Amino acid sequence: MSYRFPDDSHTLHTDAYELSMMQTYWQKGMADRRAVFELYFRDMPFGNGYAIFAGLERVIQYIEQLKFSDSDIEYLKTTRQFDDGFLEYLRDFKFTGSINSTVEGDLVFNNEPILQVDGPLIGSQLVETALLNIVNYQTLIATKAARIKSVVGSDPLLEFGTRRAQEMDAAIWGTRAAYIGGFDATSNVRAGKLFGIPISGTHAHALVQAYMNDYDAFKAYAETHYECVFLVDTFDTLKSGVPNAIRVAKEMGTKIDFQGVRIDSGDMAYISKRVRQMLDEAGFTDAKIYASNDLDEKTIMNLKMQKAKIDVWGIGTKLITAFDQPALGAVYKLVSFEDEHGKMIDTVKISSNAAKVSTPGKKQVWRITDRSDGKTEGDYVSLWDEDPREQDSIYMFNPDYTYINKTVENFDARPILQPIFDQGKLIYKVPELSEIRHFSKQHLDMLWDEYKRDLNPQIYPVDLSQNCYDNKMEIIQHVRDYVNQLKF
Amino acid sequence: MSYRFPDDSHTLHTDAYELSMMQTYWQKGMADRRAVFELYFRDMPFGNGYAIFAGLERVIQYIEQLKFSDSDIEYLKTTRQFDDGFLEYLRDFKFTGSINSTVEGDLVFNNEPILQVDGPLIGSQLVETALLNIVNYQTLIATKAARIKSVVGSDPLLEFGTRRAQEMDAAIWGTRAAYIGGFDATSNVRAGKLFGIPISGTHAHALVQAYMNDYDAFKAYAETHYECVFLVDTFDTLKSGVPNAIRVAKEMGTKIDFQGVRIDSGDMAYISKRVRQMLDEAGFTDAKIYASNDLDEKTIMNLKMQKAKIDVWGIGTKLITAFDQPALGAVYKLVSFEDEHGKMIDTVKISSNAAKVSTPGKKQVWRITDRSDGKTEGDYVSLWDEDPREQDSIYMFNPDYTYINKTVENFDARPILQPIFDQGKLIYKVPELSEIRHFSKQHLDMLWDEYKRDLNPQIYPVDLSQNCYDNKMEIIQHVRDYVNQLKF
Repeated sequence: MSYRFPDDSHTLHTDAYELSMMQTYWQKGMADRRAVFELYFRDMPFGNGYAIFAGLERVIQYIEQLKFSDSDIEYLKTTRQFDDGFLEYLRDFKFTGSINSTVEGDLVFNNEPILQVDGPLIGSQLVETALLNIVNYQTLIATKAARIKSVVGSDPLLEFGTRRAQEMDAAIWGTRAAYIGGFDATSNVRAGKLFGIPISGTHAHALVQAYMNDYDAFKAYAETHYECVFLVDTFDTLKSGVPNAIRVAKEMGTKIDFQGVRIDSGDMAYISKRVRQMLDEAGFTDAKIYASNDLDEKTIMNLKMQKAKIDVWGIGTKLITAFDQPALGAVYKLVSFEDEHGKMIDTVKISSNAAKVSTPGKKQVWRITDRSDGKTEGDYVSLWDEDPREQDSIYMFNPDYTYINKTVENFDARPILQPIFDQGKLIYKVPELSEIRHFSKQHLDMLWDEYKRDLNPQIYPVDLSQNCYDNKMEIIQHVRDYVNQLKF
Repeated sequence: MSYRFPDDSHTLHTDAYELSMMQTYWQKGMADRRAVFELYFRDMPFGNGYAIFAGLERVIQYIEQLKFSDSDIEYLKTTRQFDDGFLEYLRDFKFTGSINSTVEGDLVFNNEPILQVDGPLIGSQLVETALLNIVNYQTLIATKAARIKSVVGSDPLLEFGTRRAQEMDAAIWGTRAAYIGGFDATSNVRAGKLFGIPISGTHAHALVQAYMNDYDAFKAYAETHYECVFLVDTFDTLKSGVPNAIRVAKEMGTKIDFQGVRIDSGDMAYISKRVRQMLDEAGFTDAKIYASNDLDEKTIMNLKMQKAKIDVWGIGTKLITAFDQPALGAVYKLVSFEDEHGKMIDTVKISSNAAKVSTPGKKQVWRITDRSDGKTEGDYVSLWDEDPREQDSIYMFNPDYTYINKTVENFDARPILQPIFDQGKLIYKVPELSEIRHFSKQHLDMLWDEYKRDLNPQIYPVDLSQNCYDNKMEIIQHVRDYVNQLKF
């Protein structure tokens, strides 16, 4: 394959309009003015009661590689959309902003900042597209995984989605997000190598087809592997697959660890019960039944309702593409900007749709827990310089329906946004993936069950501090006044 | 970021079970036996009447890089799932198979092979996962793009989806597929550099927020760019955005090319008509209205029905994630395999679900067109050594409902699967992307309009040759006989 340019980098993984705006900022002398952008989403994915943040590791990789190569500049020249002086400036561009972010595995909710970039306007603008691309997908999949995890209990969950993932990055970063959300292993070997996720797999129908019959195929597999799970539905699950699996397991005895059989088609409830019976009657009561066939939390819940005898779940398409809602709609909005006198001015985006009006000002999110039971009371979004830990009680109210409110005492407040980059320098160490997964589980345990229901959960409170709310109302009024005095 | 292994490659971008099976093939001396696998999907995506094949360029890249690195082997050792001898064998593994494939941009249909791997069993098995991962996604997006293209007529279509794409690869390969399917430009700068797709973009709300008002922002943009499209909905589209865009356009006169305004929120039908009126009254009858707000073929069709005055369409989420069906379910099945005597034996995968029964044998797909009008009559799937061009007429019948049939005369038959790799050697040159796009449009024009309806199109005939059909029935019977004689 020959490309016009020899190298590829993620620096140009951005929307053209980011570069167009950067050119304006640079030419107008605004490039280095301080800007604060916040990344948030407006609606909970899948109607879920919580989301699980993921993507930070990839965000760090992206930020650390930022540099316009010679061929990047050369390419941009060919588009004739950019000023030569600006392109020369890009040659020496460095990202020198600070980033505060939710850490991976922590819970996040709608309408609160989950990642924040604070630094020179020009660099903060550049990174918008990639940060959204990364965080939107990985957070979506971690959340979907947690939903599926919530219905399987302690049954092992295997991620089998690579062949249906939306291209290669989705397969590996998606399976990493799924692991954070509670999955136990992946079929993707590359993800195993990169991230240390346990890999898992059995065999495909092709093996049985190559041998033309189940017995020879299982026997060959058993003679070449100690741990054996046989796929039994190539020709006929009950008449050939399972009896032949049992026959081979008996013949091989202790020479193999007969872990069970996998079913990939047919009526899972009926077949799994019949298979269980056959395995038990043959004395293989410890052998597990693996199922994989377009499963998601809804089908699993139904199969469990029908007492299907499935022990291990292989989940592909519905997880890795977040099939029922394949995009999280996070946005990245300018919330504060330095004016020509060096003063920070909070900014808003107005819309006739109330949900689309942004909340001005650099903010922190505090997770409020009741000290008496360790359970969460809700999130409290304050302006950055407020610290609710200095207060004895906090007044929490719904920012849309202000008559819904409560006063919380005897609370702990944990700041959700943590420092990751300080003026371009990485100051955070990403934990081991297993720690992230454990952290996520711990924090999910602190959430009331009512927020964790798969269908129609209680809505978790995300409240604004009084200062934050007043600031928003004032700025909205300011914009209204500006618009109303316009004359043409 | 520190990883346990220093390098990453796409060679391990495969399911663990492929490697497990490869170990069995290798230990059992079957590694080099000839196997033919075919890739196909069972259901048309989006209920569309056709699909557009994409992904071949990426497939070629993947095949050409196949090589197990030292660290790949080292990693596989740590899993303790593989035999040391097998891992040593992998160190020298080369892909030496032949690949025949549909070329990018060509039309494909369900239940016909769209890509075929013919070579030593072990390598043909390895590549299953990645080929599916690539072809499933890119074909899905090219098809979605064509659906959207079909409702906009000659209006320009811009791909704006990177921020909502499922990670980075999806953004760039998705926008390439969209370009093949009829899109005109992308916002993704990296895709512009890599593939030569024209890039397009305006500015974001952040620019207006940074200036605190529309006028100053548009003026600054206009003073730093010749081509100007102003985003008018930051504060108030009709009261501030559009009047200020007009004011700046008048002030700047010929110093800029005022191309139009972009609307990103609100009721597109109503607002676009008001905006059109304001632009026209100001004398800017050539200025275009750009729209971008969760659009897809359904919303566009509705907006056009309501005579919305939109000239250019920016499509993001719904295209790049194929929102209404985010996965194409293509599978990869063994259709023929060399037995121990060197004879090719055709193989089948049986299912109680008729649609899931595979069609045995190495096959070719012939697109049959009527010489009198150049329009397609349907696809004719033959065994590989059949050539319908040697016949005066062909008998085409539905393989499920055999009483639906026709005899076609005066026809042309074009073979769809083209040689790409010959025994591991690349023998195909991927055309320029613009040629692929043009090729796709040409072939779409040869399809009757009835197959191109967005909703409930006519079902395009994909028929089996008599030999292919008889072969399938015989092999199914053979498997049934095998299952029925089993005794336990």
